[in-house]
Amino acid sequence: MPMVTIQVTREGTTPDRDAPTNEEKAELIKGVSELLLKVLNKPLDSTFVIIEEVPLENWGWGGLPVPELRRRLAAGQS
Amino acid sequence: MPMVTIQVTREGTTPDRDAPTNEEKAELIKGVSELLLKVLNKPLDSTFVIIEEVPLENWGWGGLPVPELRRRLAAGQS
Amino acid sequence: MPMVTIQVTREGTTPDRDAPTNEEKAELIKGVSELLLKVLNKPLDSTFVIIEEVPLENWGWGGLPVPELRRRLAAGQS
Amino acid sequence: MPMVTIQVTREGTTPDRDAPTNEEKAELIKGVSELLLKVLNKPLDSTFVIIEEVPLENWGWGGLPVPELRRRLAAGQS
Amino acid sequence: MPMVTIQVTREGTTPDRDAPTNEEKAELIKGVSELLLKVLNKPLDSTFVIIEEVPLENWGWGGLPVPELRRRLAAGQS
Amino acid sequence: MPMVTIQVTREGTTPDRDAPTNEEKAELIKGVSELLLKVLNKPLDSTFVIIEEVPLENWGWGGLPVPELRRRLAAGQS
Repeated sequence: MPMVTIQVTREGTTPDRDAPTNEEKAELIKGVSELLLKVLNKPLDSTFVIIEEVPLENWGWGGLPVPELRRRLAAGQS
Repeated sequence: MPMVTIQVTREGTTPDRDAPTNEEKAELIKGVSELLLKVLNKPLDSTFVIIEEVPLENWGWGGLPVPELRRRLAAGQS
Repeated sequence: MPMVTIQVTREGTTPDRDAPTNEEKAELIKGVSELLLKVLNKPLDSTFVIIEEVPLENWGWGGLPVPELRRRLAAGQS
Repeated sequence: MPMVTIQVTREGTTPDRDAPTNEEKAELIKGVSELLLKVLNKPLDSTFVIIEEVPLENWGWGGLPVPELRRRLAAGQS
Repeated sequence: MPMVTIQVTREGTTPDRDAPTNEEKAELIKGVSELLLKVLNKPLDSTFVIIEEVPLENWGWGGLPVPELRRRLAAGQS
Repeated sequence: MPMVTIQVTREGTTPDRDAPTNEEKAELIKGVSELLLKVLNKPLDSTFVIIEEVPLENWGWGGLPVPELRRRLAAGQS
Protein backbone atom coordinates (compact mmCIF):
# COMPACT_ATOMS: atom_id res chain seq x y z
CA MET A 1 0.00 0.00 0.00
CA PRO A 2 2.74 2.54 -0.50
CA MET A 3 1.88 5.81 -2.16
CA VAL A 4 4.85 7.57 -3.74
CA THR A 5 4.59 11.12 -5.07
CA ILE A 6 7.51 12.31 -7.19
CA GLN A 7 7.54 16.05 -7.85
CA VAL A 8 10.03 17.25 -10.46
CA THR A 9 10.47 20.44 -12.43
CA ARG A 10 8.88 20.29 -15.90
CA GLU A 11 12.06 20.18 -17.99
CA GLY A 12 13.81 17.71 -20.24
CA THR A 13 17.02 15.81 -19.65
CA THR A 14 18.27 17.02 -23.03
CA PRO A 15 18.04 20.54 -24.54
CA ASP A 16 15.54 19.46 -27.18
CA ARG A 17 12.96 18.36 -24.59
CA ASP A 18 10.85 20.46 -22.23
CA ALA A 19 9.57 17.68 -19.97
CA PRO A 20 10.46 14.17 -18.81
CA THR A 21 9.68 11.56 -21.50
CA ASN A 22 7.15 8.77 -21.01
CA GLU A 23 10.05 6.32 -21.00
CA GLU A 24 11.74 8.22 -18.17
CA LYS A 25 8.47 8.31 -16.23
CA ALA A 26 8.01 4.57 -16.76
CA GLU A 27 11.55 4.02 -15.48
CA LEU A 28 10.84 6.07 -12.34
CA ILE A 29 7.58 4.16 -11.70
CA LYS A 30 9.32 0.80 -12.18
CA GLY A 31 12.35 1.76 -10.10
CA VAL A 32 10.49 3.15 -7.10
CA SER A 33 7.95 0.28 -7.07
CA GLU A 34 10.73 -2.31 -7.15
CA LEU A 35 12.61 -0.42 -4.43
CA LEU A 36 9.58 -0.72 -2.12
CA LEU A 37 9.25 -4.39 -2.97
CA LYS A 38 12.92 -4.99 -2.16
CA VAL A 39 13.16 -2.89 1.02
CA LEU A 40 9.71 -3.28 2.59
CA ASN A 41 8.27 -6.34 0.78
CA LYS A 42 5.47 -4.25 -0.71
CA PRO A 43 3.92 -6.13 -3.67
CA LEU A 44 4.04 -4.17 -6.92
CA ASP A 45 0.25 -4.26 -7.24
CA SER A 46 -0.14 -2.49 -3.91
CA THR A 47 2.02 0.50 -4.83
CA PHE A 48 0.72 3.71 -6.38
CA VAL A 49 3.13 6.23 -7.92
CA ILE A 50 2.16 9.74 -9.00
CA ILE A 51 4.56 11.99 -10.91
CA GLU A 52 3.86 15.72 -10.70
CA GLU A 53 5.61 18.03 -13.18
CA VAL A 54 6.01 21.53 -11.75
CA PRO A 55 6.64 24.53 -14.03
CA LEU A 56 10.10 26.01 -13.36
CA GLU A 57 8.67 29.37 -12.22
CA ASN A 58 6.54 27.52 -9.66
CA TRP A 59 9.53 25.92 -7.89
CA GLY A 60 11.59 27.94 -5.47
CA TRP A 61 14.97 27.20 -3.89
CA GLY A 62 17.22 29.60 -2.01
CA GLY A 63 14.39 32.12 -1.94
CA LEU A 64 14.33 32.37 -5.72
CA PRO A 65 12.32 30.82 -8.55
CA VAL A 66 14.49 28.18 -10.28
CA PRO A 67 14.97 30.18 -13.52
CA GLU A 68 16.31 33.18 -11.57
CA LEU A 69 18.41 30.93 -9.31
CA ARG A 70 20.02 29.33 -12.37
CA ARG A 71 20.55 32.70 -14.05
CA ARG A 72 22.43 33.97 -10.99
CA LEU A 73 24.45 30.77 -10.60
CA ALA A 74 25.42 30.96 -14.28
CA ALA A 75 26.47 34.59 -13.72
CA GLY A 76 28.64 33.47 -10.81
CA GLN A 77 26.42 35.14 -8.21
CA SER A 78 25.83 32.87 -5.23
CA MET B 1 -11.32 22.57 8.83
CA PRO B 2 -10.92 19.40 6.81
CA MET B 3 -8.76 19.51 3.71
CA VAL B 4 -9.57 16.80 1.19
CA THR B 5 -7.34 16.16 -1.82
CA ILE B 6 -8.77 13.86 -4.49
CA GLN B 7 -6.24 12.71 -7.06
CA VAL B 8 -7.68 10.95 -10.11
CA THR B 9 -6.34 10.03 -13.53
CA ARG B 10 -7.24 12.61 -16.19
CA GLU B 11 -9.78 10.53 -18.16
CA GLY B 12 -13.49 10.61 -18.85
CA THR B 13 -16.18 8.29 -17.59
CA THR B 14 -17.36 7.84 -21.18
CA PRO B 15 -15.26 7.27 -24.32
CA ASP B 16 -16.08 10.70 -25.73
CA ARG B 17 -14.53 12.50 -22.75
CA ASP B 18 -10.87 12.85 -21.75
CA ALA B 19 -11.36 14.25 -18.25
CA PRO B 20 -13.93 14.37 -15.45
CA THR B 21 -16.73 16.85 -16.22
CA ASN B 22 -17.43 19.91 -14.09
CA GLU B 23 -20.66 18.25 -12.99
CA GLU B 24 -18.77 15.18 -11.80
CA LYS B 25 -16.28 17.37 -9.95
CA ALA B 26 -19.13 19.30 -8.32
CA GLU B 27 -20.68 15.98 -7.25
CA LEU B 28 -17.37 14.86 -5.68
CA ILE B 29 -17.00 18.18 -3.83
CA LYS B 30 -20.57 18.03 -2.55
CA GLY B 31 -20.37 14.38 -1.60
CA VAL B 32 -17.09 14.53 0.31
CA SER B 33 -18.04 17.77 2.10
CA GLU B 34 -21.37 16.30 3.22
CA LEU B 35 -19.62 13.10 4.30
CA LEU B 36 -17.37 15.10 6.65
CA LEU B 37 -20.38 16.99 7.96
CA LYS B 38 -22.21 13.74 8.65
CA VAL B 39 -19.33 11.75 10.14
CA LEU B 40 -17.27 14.39 11.96
CA ASN B 41 -19.73 17.33 12.24
CA LYS B 42 -17.46 19.52 10.08
CA PRO B 43 -19.46 22.50 8.77
CA LEU B 44 -19.49 22.74 4.98
CA ASP B 45 -17.90 26.20 5.08
CA SER B 46 -14.90 24.83 6.94
CA THR B 47 -14.06 22.16 4.36
CA PHE B 48 -11.70 22.65 1.42
CA VAL B 49 -11.63 20.12 -1.42
CA ILE B 50 -8.98 20.05 -4.16
CA ILE B 51 -9.26 17.74 -7.17
CA GLU B 52 -6.01 16.97 -8.96
CA GLU B 53 -6.20 15.42 -12.43
CA VAL B 54 -3.10 13.34 -13.18
CA PRO B 55 -2.12 12.43 -16.77
CA LEU B 56 -2.35 8.66 -17.30
CA GLU B 57 1.38 8.33 -18.05
CA ASN B 58 2.14 10.03 -14.72
CA TRP B 59 0.28 7.43 -12.63
CA GLY B 60 1.91 4.11 -11.88
CA TRP B 61 0.44 0.91 -10.44
CA GLY B 62 2.03 -2.52 -10.34
CA GLY B 63 5.32 -0.98 -11.43
CA LEU B 64 3.86 0.21 -14.73
CA PRO B 65 2.38 3.43 -16.07
CA VAL B 66 -1.41 3.04 -16.26
CA PRO B 67 -1.57 2.96 -20.11
CA GLU B 68 0.92 0.04 -20.21
CA LEU B 69 -0.78 -1.70 -17.28
CA ARG B 70 -4.12 -1.54 -19.09
CA ARG B 71 -2.56 -2.69 -22.37
CA ARG B 72 -1.13 -5.78 -20.66
CA LEU B 73 -4.36 -6.51 -18.77
CA ALA B 74 -6.31 -6.26 -22.05
CA ALA B 75 -3.82 -8.68 -23.64
CA GLY B 76 -4.40 -11.09 -20.79
CA GLN B 77 -0.91 -10.58 -19.34
CA SER B 78 -0.97 -10.20 -15.56
CA MET C 1 -6.86 4.55 -9.13
CA PRO C 2 -8.05 7.48 -7.08
CA MET C 3 -5.95 8.60 -4.16
CA VAL C 4 -7.88 10.54 -1.52
CA THR C 5 -6.11 12.33 1.32
CA ILE C 6 -8.32 13.57 4.14
CA GLN C 7 -6.60 15.95 6.54
CA VAL C 8 -8.53 16.75 9.73
CA THR C 9 -7.64 18.31 13.05
CA ARG C 10 -6.81 15.71 15.72
CA GLU C 11 -9.90 16.15 17.91
CA GLY C 12 -12.93 14.12 18.89
CA THR C 13 -16.54 14.62 17.89
CA THR C 14 -17.49 14.44 21.57
CA PRO C 15 -15.77 16.11 24.55
CA ASP C 16 -14.52 12.83 25.94
CA ARG C 17 -12.48 12.04 22.83
CA ASP C 18 -9.30 13.68 21.53
CA ALA C 19 -9.24 12.16 18.05
CA PRO C 20 -11.57 10.63 15.45
CA THR C 21 -12.53 7.05 16.38
CA ASN C 22 -11.66 4.04 14.24
CA GLU C 23 -15.36 3.70 13.43
CA GLU C 24 -15.48 7.28 12.17
CA LYS C 25 -12.35 6.72 10.09
CA ALA C 26 -13.85 3.52 8.63
CA GLU C 27 -17.00 5.49 7.76
CA LEU C 28 -14.95 8.16 5.97
CA ILE C 29 -13.00 5.50 4.02
CA LYS C 30 -16.20 3.70 3.02
CA GLY C 31 -18.04 6.88 2.14
CA VAL C 32 -15.35 8.45 -0.03
CA SER C 33 -14.56 5.17 -1.81
CA GLU C 34 -18.23 4.62 -2.63
CA LEU C 35 -18.55 8.23 -3.78
CA LEU C 36 -15.77 7.68 -6.33
CA LEU C 37 -17.39 4.45 -7.45
CA LYS C 38 -20.73 6.20 -7.93
CA VAL C 39 -19.48 9.39 -9.58
CA LEU C 40 -16.47 8.21 -11.62
CA ASN C 41 -16.97 4.40 -11.77
CA LYS C 42 -13.76 3.81 -9.85
CA PRO C 43 -13.74 0.25 -8.45
CA LEU C 44 -13.34 0.12 -4.67
CA ASP C 45 -10.18 -1.95 -4.98
CA SER C 46 -8.51 0.77 -7.04
CA THR C 47 -9.04 3.53 -4.45
CA PHE C 48 -6.57 4.44 -1.72
CA VAL C 49 -7.62 6.68 1.16
CA ILE C 50 -5.23 8.21 3.69
CA ILE C 51 -6.46 10.08 6.77
CA GLU C 52 -4.00 12.51 8.33
CA GLU C 53 -4.73 13.81 11.84
CA VAL C 54 -3.16 17.24 12.38
CA PRO C 55 -2.56 18.60 15.91
CA LEU C 56 -4.72 21.68 16.54
CA GLU C 57 -1.68 23.96 17.01
CA ASN C 58 -0.40 22.85 13.60
CA TRP C 59 -3.49 24.01 11.72
CA GLY C 60 -3.96 27.68 10.91
CA TRP C 61 -7.01 29.57 9.66
CA GLY C 62 -7.51 33.30 9.50
CA GLY C 63 -3.84 33.79 10.31
CA LEU C 64 -4.19 32.08 13.69
CA PRO C 65 -3.62 28.59 15.07
CA VAL C 66 -7.01 26.91 15.56
CA PRO C 67 -6.90 26.98 19.41
CA GLU C 68 -6.34 30.78 19.39
CA LEU C 69 -8.93 31.27 16.63
CA ARG C 70 -11.53 29.41 18.69
CA ARG C 71 -10.57 31.28 21.87
CA ARG C 72 -11.15 34.61 20.12
CA LEU C 73 -14.40 33.47 18.48
CA ALA C 74 -15.65 32.28 21.89
CA ALA C 75 -14.73 35.68 23.33
CA GLY C 76 -16.72 37.36 20.60
CA GLN C 77 -13.64 38.76 18.87
CA SER C 78 -13.82 38.32 15.12
CA MET D 1 15.12 21.53 4.91
CA PRO D 2 11.63 22.95 4.92
CA MET D 3 9.31 22.03 2.09
CA VAL D 4 6.49 24.51 1.52
CA THR D 5 3.61 23.76 -0.84
CA ILE D 6 1.36 26.68 -1.70
CA GLN D 7 -1.87 25.72 -3.43
CA VAL D 8 -3.88 28.59 -4.90
CA THR D 9 -6.74 28.85 -7.37
CA ARG D 10 -5.55 29.58 -10.92
CA GLU D 11 -6.79 33.17 -11.23
CA GLY D 12 -5.27 36.61 -11.54
CA THR D 13 -5.18 39.41 -9.00
CA THR D 14 -6.57 41.75 -11.66
CA PRO D 15 -9.39 41.11 -14.15
CA ASP D 16 -7.03 41.04 -17.12
CA ARG D 17 -5.07 38.09 -15.76
CA ASP D 18 -6.09 34.45 -15.39
CA ALA D 19 -3.24 33.24 -13.19
CA PRO D 20 -0.69 34.57 -10.69
CA THR D 21 2.18 36.37 -12.45
CA ASN D 22 5.79 35.19 -12.28
CA GLU D 23 6.55 38.27 -10.19
CA GLU D 24 3.84 37.34 -7.68
CA LYS D 25 5.15 33.77 -7.54
CA ALA D 26 8.70 35.05 -6.99
CA GLU D 27 7.39 37.24 -4.17
CA LEU D 28 5.67 34.26 -2.52
CA ILE D 29 8.84 32.14 -2.81
CA LYS D 30 11.01 34.91 -1.36
CA GLY D 31 8.54 35.74 1.41
CA VAL D 32 7.98 32.20 2.65
CA SER D 33 11.67 31.29 2.47
CA GLU D 34 12.64 34.39 4.48
CA LEU D 35 9.85 33.63 6.98
CA LEU D 36 11.35 30.20 7.66
CA LEU D 37 14.81 31.73 7.98
CA LYS D 38 13.52 34.28 10.48
CA VAL D 39 11.30 31.99 12.56
CA LEU D 40 13.14 28.65 12.47
CA ASN D 41 16.67 29.68 11.30
CA LYS D 42 16.29 27.59 8.15
CA PRO D 43 18.93 28.69 5.58
CA LEU D 44 17.41 29.84 2.29
CA ASP D 45 19.33 27.19 0.36
CA SER D 46 17.69 24.43 2.40
CA THR D 47 14.12 25.50 1.63
CA PHE D 48 12.06 24.20 -1.29
CA VAL D 49 8.84 25.96 -2.30
CA ILE D 50 6.31 24.55 -4.76
CA ILE D 51 3.34 26.59 -6.01
CA GLU D 52 0.41 24.60 -7.37
CA GLU D 53 -2.22 26.44 -9.39
CA VAL D 54 -5.61 24.71 -9.15
CA PRO D 55 -8.36 25.35 -11.74
CA LEU D 56 -11.35 27.07 -10.11
CA GLU D 57 -13.70 24.16 -10.88
CA ASN D 58 -11.29 21.82 -9.09
CA TRP D 59 -11.46 23.70 -5.79
CA GLY D 60 -14.42 23.22 -3.48
CA TRP D 61 -15.49 25.19 -0.42
CA GLY D 62 -18.82 25.00 1.39
CA GLY D 63 -19.68 21.91 -0.64
CA LEU D 64 -19.57 23.83 -3.90
CA PRO D 65 -17.02 24.42 -6.66
CA VAL D 66 -15.60 27.94 -6.28
CA PRO D 67 -17.30 29.36 -9.43
CA GLU D 68 -20.74 28.25 -8.15
CA LEU D 69 -19.95 29.42 -4.61
CA ARG D 70 -19.05 32.88 -5.93
CA ARG D 71 -22.12 32.98 -8.18
CA ARG D 72 -24.38 32.29 -5.19
CA LEU D 73 -22.56 34.77 -2.94
CA ALA D 74 -22.87 37.41 -5.64
CA ALA D 75 -26.59 36.61 -5.88
CA GLY D 76 -26.90 37.07 -2.14
CA GLN D 77 -27.53 33.39 -1.51
CA SER D 78 -25.52 32.10 1.43
CA MET E 1 15.17 19.64 -7.25
CA PRO E 2 12.98 16.56 -6.98
CA MET E 3 10.75 16.16 -3.97
CA VAL E 4 9.75 12.58 -3.24
CA THR E 5 7.10 11.74 -0.66
CA ILE E 6 6.84 8.06 0.31
CA GLN E 7 3.73 7.21 2.31
CA VAL E 8 3.69 3.73 3.86
CA THR E 9 1.61 2.04 6.52
CA ARG E 10 3.28 2.15 9.96
CA GLU E 11 4.17 -1.55 10.28
CA GLY E 12 7.32 -3.63 10.39
CA THR E 13 8.67 -6.02 7.80
CA THR E 14 8.99 -8.68 10.50
CA PRO E 15 6.44 -9.60 13.22
CA ASP E 16 8.63 -8.22 15.99
CA ARG E 17 8.60 -4.71 14.56
CA ASP E 18 5.76 -2.17 14.35
CA ALA E 19 7.35 0.31 11.96
CA PRO E 20 10.01 0.51 9.24
CA THR E 21 13.52 0.56 10.74
CA ASN E 22 15.92 3.48 10.32
CA GLU E 23 18.05 1.23 8.11
CA GLU E 24 15.07 0.53 5.84
CA LYS E 25 14.25 4.24 5.67
CA ALA E 26 17.90 5.04 4.83
CA GLU E 27 17.75 2.42 2.06
CA LEU E 28 14.58 3.99 0.62
CA ILE E 29 16.14 7.48 0.73
CA LYS E 30 19.32 6.26 -0.96
CA GLY E 31 17.49 4.18 -3.55
CA VAL E 32 15.01 6.85 -4.65
CA SER E 33 17.66 9.59 -4.73
CA GLU E 34 19.97 7.44 -6.88
CA LEU E 35 17.03 6.54 -9.15
CA LEU E 36 16.41 10.23 -9.86
CA LEU E 37 20.11 10.77 -10.48
CA LYS E 38 20.20 7.87 -12.93
CA VAL E 39 16.93 8.57 -14.78
CA LEU E 40 16.73 12.38 -14.75
CA ASN E 41 20.33 13.44 -13.89
CA LYS E 42 19.14 15.07 -10.66
CA PRO E 43 22.13 15.59 -8.34
CA LEU E 44 21.73 13.88 -4.96
CA ASP E 45 22.07 17.20 -3.14
CA SER E 46 19.08 18.60 -4.99
CA THR E 47 16.68 15.81 -3.95
CA PHE E 48 14.48 15.88 -0.87
CA VAL E 49 12.79 12.70 0.34
CA ILE E 50 10.09 12.59 3.02
CA ILE E 51 8.79 9.31 4.45
CA GLU E 52 5.35 9.45 6.07
CA GLU E 53 4.27 6.53 8.26
CA VAL E 54 0.49 6.19 8.31
CA PRO E 55 -1.30 4.24 11.08
CA LEU E 56 -3.03 1.14 9.66
CA GLU E 57 -6.50 2.36 10.66
CA ASN E 58 -5.85 5.60 8.75
CA TRP E 59 -5.23 3.84 5.42
CA GLY E 60 -8.16 2.62 3.36
CA TRP E 61 -8.24 0.30 0.35
CA GLY E 62 -11.30 -1.34 -1.19
CA GLY E 63 -13.53 0.83 0.95
CA LEU E 64 -12.14 -0.65 4.16
CA PRO E 65 -9.47 0.29 6.70
CA VAL E 66 -6.43 -1.93 6.14
CA PRO E 67 -6.85 -3.97 9.38
CA GLU E 68 -10.44 -4.88 8.39
CA LEU E 69 -9.44 -5.53 4.77
CA ARG E 70 -6.72 -7.95 5.94
CA ARG E 71 -9.08 -9.63 8.41
CA ARG E 72 -11.59 -10.31 5.64
CA LEU E 73 -8.91 -11.49 3.20
CA ALA E 74 -7.55 -13.84 5.85
CA ALA E 75 -11.11 -15.13 6.37
CA GLY E 76 -11.40 -15.78 2.65
CA GLN E 77 -13.94 -13.01 2.15
CA SER E 78 -13.19 -10.93 -0.93
CA MET F 1 -8.67 29.84 -0.67
CA PRO F 2 -4.98 29.19 -0.46
CA MET F 3 -3.82 26.01 1.19
CA VAL F 4 -0.27 26.15 2.51
CA THR F 5 1.52 23.04 3.76
CA ILE F 6 4.77 23.63 5.63
CA GLN F 7 6.84 20.50 6.20
CA VAL F 8 9.77 20.87 8.60
CA THR F 9 12.01 18.45 10.45
CA ARG F 10 10.84 17.81 14.03
CA GLU F 11 13.62 19.65 15.87
CA GLY F 12 13.95 22.73 18.03
CA THR F 13 15.61 26.04 17.25
CA THR F 14 17.57 25.75 20.48
CA PRO F 15 19.36 22.67 21.93
CA ASP F 16 16.88 22.32 24.78
CA ARG F 17 13.93 21.81 22.43
CA ASP F 18 13.08 18.87 20.19
CA ALA F 19 10.35 20.48 18.09
CA PRO F 20 9.14 23.90 16.96
CA THR F 21 7.29 25.74 19.75
CA ASN F 22 3.62 26.74 19.53
CA GLU F 23 4.77 30.36 19.35
CA GLU F 24 6.99 29.60 16.36
CA LYS F 25 4.14 27.72 14.67
CA ALA F 26 1.79 30.65 15.31
CA GLU F 27 4.38 32.98 13.78
CA LEU F 28 4.64 30.79 10.66
CA ILE F 29 0.82 30.67 10.31
CA LYS F 30 0.52 34.43 10.72
CA GLY F 31 3.43 35.19 8.41
CA VAL F 32 2.37 32.97 5.53
CA SER F 33 -1.29 34.02 5.74
CA GLU F 34 -0.33 37.72 5.67
CA LEU F 35 2.05 37.05 2.77
CA LEU F 36 -0.82 35.63 0.71
CA LEU F 37 -3.00 38.59 1.67
CA LYS F 38 -0.30 41.02 0.58
CA VAL F 39 0.78 39.31 -2.65
CA LEU F 40 -2.45 37.75 -3.94
CA ASN F 41 -5.16 39.63 -1.96
CA LYS F 42 -6.29 36.39 -0.31
CA PRO F 43 -8.36 37.21 2.81
CA LEU F 44 -6.96 35.69 6.00
CA ASP F 45 -10.17 33.77 6.60
CA SER F 46 -9.81 31.99 3.27
CA THR F 47 -6.34 30.63 3.96
CA PHE F 48 -5.61 27.26 5.54
CA VAL F 49 -2.12 26.47 6.82
CA ILE F 50 -0.97 23.00 7.90
CA ILE F 51 2.40 22.42 9.57
CA GLU F 52 3.77 18.88 9.34
CA GLU F 53 6.67 17.92 11.63
CA VAL F 54 8.77 15.14 10.09
CA PRO F 55 11.09 12.98 12.25
CA LEU F 56 14.74 13.57 11.27
CA GLU F 57 15.24 9.95 10.17
CA ASN F 58 12.26 10.31 7.82
CA TRP F 59 13.77 13.22 5.88
CA GLY F 60 16.41 12.56 3.26
CA TRP F 61 18.74 14.94 1.44
CA GLY F 62 21.77 14.09 -0.68
CA GLY F 63 20.73 10.44 -0.57
CA LEU F 64 21.10 10.27 3.20
CA PRO F 65 18.80 10.58 6.21
CA VAL F 66 19.35 13.99 7.81
CA PRO F 67 21.08 12.64 10.98
CA GLU F 68 23.66 10.79 8.85
CA LEU F 69 24.05 13.76 6.49
CA ARG F 70 24.78 16.04 9.45
CA ARG F 71 27.17 13.52 11.01
CA ARG F 72 29.20 13.38 7.80
CA LEU F 73 29.15 17.16 7.33
CA ALA F 74 30.34 17.59 10.92
CA ALA F 75 33.14 15.09 10.21
CA GLY F 76 34.13 17.10 7.17
CA GLN F 77 32.97 14.44 4.72
CA SER F 78 30.98 15.96 1.84
